[in-house]
Amino acid sequence: MDVSSLPATPREIRELIRGGAIARNTAGMAPGHVQANLAILPRDLAFDFLLFCQRNPKPCPLIEVVEAGQTEPRETAPGADLRSDTPKYRVYRHGEMTEETADVSEYWRDDLVSFLLGCSFSFESAMERAGVPLRHIEAGTNVSMFVTDIETAPAGAFSGPMVVSMRPIPRDQVVRTVQVTSRFPGVHGAPVHVGDPAAIGIRDVGAPDLGDPVEIRDGEVPVFWACGVTPQAVAMRSKPPLMITHSPGHMFITDLRDEDLAVF
Amino acid sequence: MDVSSLPATPREIRELIRGGAIARNTAGMAPGHVQANLAILPRDLAFDFLLFCQRNPKPCPLIEVVEAGQTEPRETAPGADLRSDTPKYRVYRHGEMTEETADVSEYWRDDLVSFLLGCSFSFESAMERAGVPLRHIEAGTNVSMFVTDIETAPAGAFSGPMVVSMRPIPRDQVVRTVQVTSRFPGVHGAPVHVGDPAAIGIRDVGAPDLGDPVEIRDGEVPVFWACGVTPQAVAMRSKPPLMITHSPGHMFITDLRDEDLAVF
Repeated sequence: MDVSSLPATPREIRELIRGGAIARNTAGMAPGHVQANLAILPRDLAFDFLLFCQRNPKPCPLIEVVEAGQTEPRETAPGADLRSDTPKYRVYRHGEMTEETADVSEYWRDDLVSFLLGCSFSFESAMERAGVPLRHIEAGTNVSMFVTDIETAPAGAFSGPMVVSMRPIPRDQVVRTVQVTSRFPGVHGAPVHVGDPAAIGIRDVGAPDLGDPVEIRDGEVPVFWACGVTPQAVAMRSKPPLMITHSPGHMFITDLRDEDLAVF
Repeated sequence: MDVSSLPATPREIRELIRGGAIARNTAGMAPGHVQANLAILPRDLAFDFLLFCQRNPKPCPLIEVVEAGQTEPRETAPGADLRSDTPKYRVYRHGEMTEETADVSEYWRDDLVSFLLGCSFSFESAMERAGVPLRHIEAGTNVSMFVTDIETAPAGAFSGPMVVSMRPIPRDQVVRTVQVTSRFPGVHGAPVHVGDPAAIGIRDVGAPDLGDPVEIRDGEVPVFWACGVTPQAVAMRSKPPLMITHSPGHMFITDLRDEDLAVF
């Protein structure tokens, strides 16, 4: 299915996803709107996870929290159903993935709390509007991601290293890149590091821990952002009895516009 | 005691407070450092209150959350003790104030969770540095505060109207005021409204619900900010069995610098 032939509103796209007409990853859908990472946990872990997000806003920028017993994100996607409106989900038990599915209604319990977290699609749109090239998008590959030696601030059961994404940026656009992404703390915001992979514990910037390698050309600087994989990785380390997430790239599309999250 | 004769570091001031040598309000102490509102609640209300803060970041800007069983804010004031390092506390039972005291050790329980929230002292410092006059400080009175018809986003047991503070700003400094305070979302940040008290449900801008009246002169515009009284007012409405707060103006002084909270 060609993304450009899809309807433009988040609500219409969510309805197609819910009905099974869209099953692919959501890159490029509903341009200008905020897509979100999804993490669903039992209530007895929810306070610690919420606190973890509050302490680590760069990797875990909260967009909305939906309380136990509810499935509709009323603030950012009224009318949506979190059990069916994401194209693909992963179900984990005690830290092991047990299923990948298009609908998690059968797993739903009244004690599940849902967390929607900002994703880098929004700040990448801002970079594109500012004329900053994004090589992994040009190349059609996944962004390079690395486990760093930056420790997150722990909260209860949750702790672990920060995962970052890396984008090679032309030297003369680094300052503009910092400015443009700083406007969007709700979707990871400003970089966590510019320039030296070793300074944050990355041994080989050509060999990412997740995603695909990307070439760094002469005159380019590797720039690193906190990555939304962090909260999932951290949650998984605690081996929760049940955790449901979106599948990579298969995001939950909200009604929010990217600009709604801009701080200035 | 003259504030200018006090030691300059937050740690030294907290030690004087803990020992009983300082009992007054903390206005002007440890200039350049973040002072915080304090709210302490039992654990079974903590998730809802944390969620309320996440949903209402303008009135409830979280600086740090200290988990049940702990009394040291390790991130923002290592070595401090939340039971004794605020000059005056209020103890509420089921929504009624039962005591005002300089030390709450005797009330402490292992299930109490402590919330430190940003206060307007920090953004007022930024306004002063930018040359914006603050009449209530010049006059030595308390800022004017109003209960509005802006509803906060509810969370569990917590809901209610937003309380705002008002400062009269010269018309030609309104834009600068918005810019300067926008840098500090961690201490209430940008105004919630500029210009028309009736638009946010305020009938008589000369008759504040809390604090003191302040004159609005020709060529000045009333500018309104979300106020840290909101979370206390909202929490009190739910009549928690136990809640401990700072006394008005008697803040908890952190080691953070105001500029640590600036977003750009």
